[in-house]
Amino acid sequence: MSERNRRVLLVGRPAGIPLATDFAIDNAPLAPLVSGQFRVRNHYLSVDPAQRGWAADVSNYSQPVPLGSVMRALAVGRIVASRHPDFPVGTGVYGWFGWQQFATAGPADVLTRVADTGLPLSAHAGVLGINGLTAWLAFHDLGRPRGGETVLVSTAAGAVGSIVGQLAKAAGCVVVGLTGSDEKAALCLRDFGCDRAFNYRSRPLDRLLAEALPEGADIFFDNVGGEILDRALRSLRPGGRLIQCGTASIASWDPAPTGPRNEREVLTRRLTWSGFVIFDHAARFAEAAAGLVALIRAGALTYREDIRVGLDEAPGALGDVYAGRNTGKTLIDLTGEG
Amino acid sequence: MSERNRRVLLVGRPAGIPLATDFAIDNAPLAPLVSGQFRVRNHYLSVDPAQRGWAADVSNYSQPVPLGSVMRALAVGRIVASRHPDFPVGTGVYGWFGWQQFATAGPADVLTRVADTGLPLSAHAGVLGINGLTAWLAFHDLGRPRGGETVLVSTAAGAVGSIVGQLAKAAGCVVVGLTGSDEKAALCLRDFGCDRAFNYRSRPLDRLLAEALPEGADIFFDNVGGEILDRALRSLRPGGRLIQCGTASIASWDPAPTGPRNEREVLTRRLTWSGFVIFDHAARFAEAAAGLVALIRAGALTYREDIRVGLDEAPGALGDVYAGRNTGKTLIDLTGEG
Repeated sequence: MSERNRRVLLVGRPAGIPLATDFAIDNAPLAPLVSGQFRVRNHYLSVDPAQRGWAADVSNYSQPVPLGSVMRALAVGRIVASRHPDFPVGTGVYGWFGWQQFATAGPADVLTRVADTGLPLSAHAGVLGINGLTAWLAFHDLGRPRGGETVLVSTAAGAVGSIVGQLAKAAGCVVVGLTGSDEKAALCLRDFGCDRAFNYRSRPLDRLLAEALPEGADIFFDNVGGEILDRALRSLRPGGRLIQCGTASIASWDPAPTGPRNEREVLTRRLTWSGFVIFDHAARFAEAAAGLVALIRAGALTYREDIRVGLDEAPGALGDVYAGRNTGKTLIDLTGEG
Repeated sequence: MSERNRRVLLVGRPAGIPLATDFAIDNAPLAPLVSGQFRVRNHYLSVDPAQRGWAADVSNYSQPVPLGSVMRALAVGRIVASRHPDFPVGTGVYGWFGWQQFATAGPADVLTRVADTGLPLSAHAGVLGINGLTAWLAFHDLGRPRGGETVLVSTAAGAVGSIVGQLAKAAGCVVVGLTGSDEKAALCLRDFGCDRAFNYRSRPLDRLLAEALPEGADIFFDNVGGEILDRALRSLRPGGRLIQCGTASIASWDPAPTGPRNEREVLTRRLTWSGFVIFDHAARFAEAAAGLVALIRAGALTYREDIRVGLDEAPGALGDVYAGRNTGKTLIDLTGEG
């Protein structure tokens, strides 16, 4: 085992989307483990839109990452040294291991242990990680889908959206996807469960949504917020459910952006507009993962990974995700390092 | 029985709050009943903020009232002539009987029959009418209150809010009321279940809400929308429930007003923001009314009526409600007419 640890540090406080220049890479010595700790060699680092919020100088549901420290991130890896009896060497784990080669961790940092699913380790940071778990729990619990209903999904080719589309299809819904390019729209139709899919850059949004949803939608699984949200909300049928899972289209919340008032729409359409943060639901991860694995084995759920090789790829990866230069789950592969 | 019928007609299409000048009173002959119909002599006409939406030239959850026809309204009265076997003369009924002395009605116009509660007939158009039913069903179903939680109510001295405060108190919650005058705030404390009550005109809203909710709220039962909504939403604790029951603070929706974007708050606070329209829930009116009657009999629910005498009072009453010149339920008493 290397005695040194290459790490991605947060060195700038981004006003909006974190860019490569907000990070620096160093190479620090590894401290010895103390009792109760174990060391994780990270195989795949996760790149998640939520990292924007963690890097910003505003607490939302979690505290900001301190400047100069390792960028907070999820990762999947294997335990290579341990001073904790419940976490022996060789255990596969997914959790808060940061953008670095090696994490010095404890039980509280672990979200899930890698179960023997037959799927590659990378899947545990994507389709079986927070992306798939979010899709499963938010769509089922907050969407309450019924067969025959119409489901609209934004970022329908993204790490969460691509799974939501397929879950909606499996639930017997009509699935309409919004995504950022014609190529991704084609992929949504081919692989991600969509009956109709649209490049939201292809025409004015009002025309696009009128065409996408001639009879409205019952569920909107939204990862973007902004104008797409405002217009889609006005396409929801009475009793519609709006799941707010991200706000990727809003470049900055400071100063606070404005938009059309939505309270009358919530009222007259009798909407239920709910926010979802996956970390509230740890007690149900195993149940959700089992559901996802069953669908994958049945051939009803495919997933796509956008794997970039090497720690040096991490700093720029978040900007790429926000610019839509990914399809499916973005991961940083460290298996060739260290 | 009079052969003529004094009626309040909608003659103007209000852009915002309907004013007395948007209405005219006529005196029309009554047509004979046909089979399946019955005639209701209205005792109390209901004055409801929702009438603004019905009078506007925009359909929301119901079609606009045609110009020149009787203003759509709820009322409570007794059947004075009948050609329907299930609705004999003498039956007390509450329903869509309009702002007029006599309604020619059928079964579809009836919301509830007046049960033998020992309460005066007027109560069936207020605390046991849509106001109380709304408070009961929206607060319990969408608020899902737990003992010890903090509940914020806007228009806390109004027809719905005054009941919500008392239901919240009965559910073991800490109740904080917002209302439009110091006198009403005192009434909220004395009669309407509030532990704290504030005149929202007394100081800047940010200071007021910081003082009203030093530790945030779990439930916001909102009847006003606008800036109060935006600020109260930002005072909700994680997992908070926001019940949108009215938007009384917004004078006009054309052009669409703007406000701060709320989707990030919905997400990071994991809110559930739901719209409620009472007419979706007719199947549960009897259950809710029974719950309200039980509380009234137990001395845990008081209600207040703002009764104005004579049909001529109806045209101006809606403007008064929107201006906050009422406390409790506004009714027009027709018992002295006809």
